[in-house]
Amino acid sequence: MTVHPMTSEALSDEVVASVGNAPARTREVLQALLRHLHAFAAEVNLTTAEWEAGIDFLTRAGHITDDERQEFILLSDVLGLSMQVVGLNAAEDPRATESTVFGPFFVEKTPHVGLGDDIAAGAPGEPCWIDGTVTDVHGAPIAGARVDIWETDGDGVYDVQYGDSRTAARGYLVTGDDGRYAFWSLRPVAYSIPADGPVGDLLSATGRRTMRPAHVHLRVTADGYRQLVTHVFDRTDPYIAEDAVFGVKESLIVDFEPQSPGTGPGGRELDSTWYRVSYDLVLADA
Amino acid sequence: MTVHPMTSEALSDEVVASVGNAPARTREVLQALLRHLHAFAAEVNLTTAEWEAGIDFLTRAGHITDDERQEFILLSDVLGLSMQVVGLNAAEDPRATESTVFGPFFVEKTPHVGLGDDIAAGAPGEPCWIDGTVTDVHGAPIAGARVDIWETDGDGVYDVQYGDSRTAARGYLVTGDDGRYAFWSLRPVAYSIPADGPVGDLLSATGRRTMRPAHVHLRVTADGYRQLVTHVFDRTDPYIAEDAVFGVKESLIVDFEPQSPGTGPGGRELDSTWYRVSYDLVLADA
Ligand SMILES: [Fe+2]
Ligand SMILES: [Fe+2]
Repeated sequence: MTVHPMTSEALSDEVVASVGNAPARTREVLQALLRHLHAFAAEVNLTTAEWEAGIDFLTRAGHITDDERQEFILLSDVLGLSMQVVGLNAAEDPRATESTVFGPFFVEKTPHVGLGDDIAAGAPGEPCWIDGTVTDVHGAPIAGARVDIWETDGDGVYDVQYGDSRTAARGYLVTGDDGRYAFWSLRPVAYSIPADGPVGDLLSATGRRTMRPAHVHLRVTADGYRQLVTHVFDRTDPYIAEDAVFGVKESLIVDFEPQSPGTGPGGRELDSTWYRVSYDLVLADA
Repeated sequence: MTVHPMTSEALSDEVVASVGNAPARTREVLQALLRHLHAFAAEVNLTTAEWEAGIDFLTRAGHITDDERQEFILLSDVLGLSMQVVGLNAAEDPRATESTVFGPFFVEKTPHVGLGDDIAAGAPGEPCWIDGTVTDVHGAPIAGARVDIWETDGDGVYDVQYGDSRTAARGYLVTGDDGRYAFWSLRPVAYSIPADGPVGDLLSATGRRTMRPAHVHLRVTADGYRQLVTHVFDRTDPYIAEDAVFGVKESLIVDFEPQSPGTGPGGRELDSTWYRVSYDLVLADA
């Protein structure tokens, strides 16, 4: 009868043993989690008040989370756990485009746009043309790949943050036979992650900034290939070396090249500076 | 410019460093938490689907938590974290009564009862008389100590689970000059922790039971002494060796001694079997 676990280690052993009959992978994950959780508490001599603060933090995160706000993903992002998982699950092929965090602003229901269309939908910001080719690791174009795009407007706000049901700077297209993708949208700007909840309080308590450097989110899906979730980042962004969610990778930094007013791709007439980016997206085999 | 943390360790180091400017204790706790969190993910090679399941689990726990249900405390309890924290914060004096989990069923606003009163408030169950003396570690009685009591009724249900605003099997009293405490209530019974939420799913996925052996919760507070949060457990309970929250300690197991019908303490007339428990509560110095 184990009714008297006197030491921290004995208690930890008993708890770890309690999930010993779970299916193999569940057991493996939970036992590692339990070992680390107990070791953490013992190592820092966690006080009752700190434990209470943790319970309160999670409760607040749960209550602020709804269909349009995901505080737990945000927490995972700022703790670098999301990028850790991205790294652990990355394609092994070094020729594939690198992945980064998914983030909390993806929307499943998003409009289909044609090649070369404008997804800005009237949102404020500087026009930007982005194009490239979706290929396999040997450079062969992939036809029929679905490319999802989402980004902030020129004010650093995602459409889901507008508070109405508008869609802007968001959509998906399908590559043609040559694997090419192309669209008009907006030059992304740096933005603050939502800082009015417990995650914001955590960053502020630790003296950390809430900013993410300007980026465009891309998700590429094609039959027979590994799904790619990534961003392209603006090389000139002042926050490029201090992304609040640790998402920047050298290979994902691109040049948003300024262009003079005049006629742009697809015959669009531009009366102010616009930008262009070319970036090829390389999918690993499934 | 650190924009390219290639390895799991490099990323972990970068995240740990990001909270390096927090106040000393915050930094200490968070850096240990981050090291363990990242080591856990790397050790089990956490998959994207498992990470998503974790986000979903926390989201569900947050949404089921309200003023009367605290799924995060329940989670902490079944993971043994609560008992770990109890152990780390226990009084060092071995003469003091041992503590155990606080649990999710305490209510701040609770009725004051006189010495020897009945707190059952008409709830179903077998009558039980509990008494003892609150003393310091030298055996000197402590006058004016506040003793909070809460327990399930004879059906294994706490009053806060009734769904109305009734108070039953709950109250507090204050010790007299002789340090004595005494009350009528009910013999506690084993009960299942709330199993209809994510914590219940977790226990079921790991083949663990949701039962807690019969117990009475006690919290004792007195000026100049360390607050005591504990239970007394029924020695005959079939779940005594497998408490779902790891709360049982040898020194907290007591005998609920059956008594024949007749006249009980305070002149109460009992027409069926009733029980009595004597248990002294020893407070460590503050
Ligand atoms: Fe973003
Ligand atoms: Fe209880």
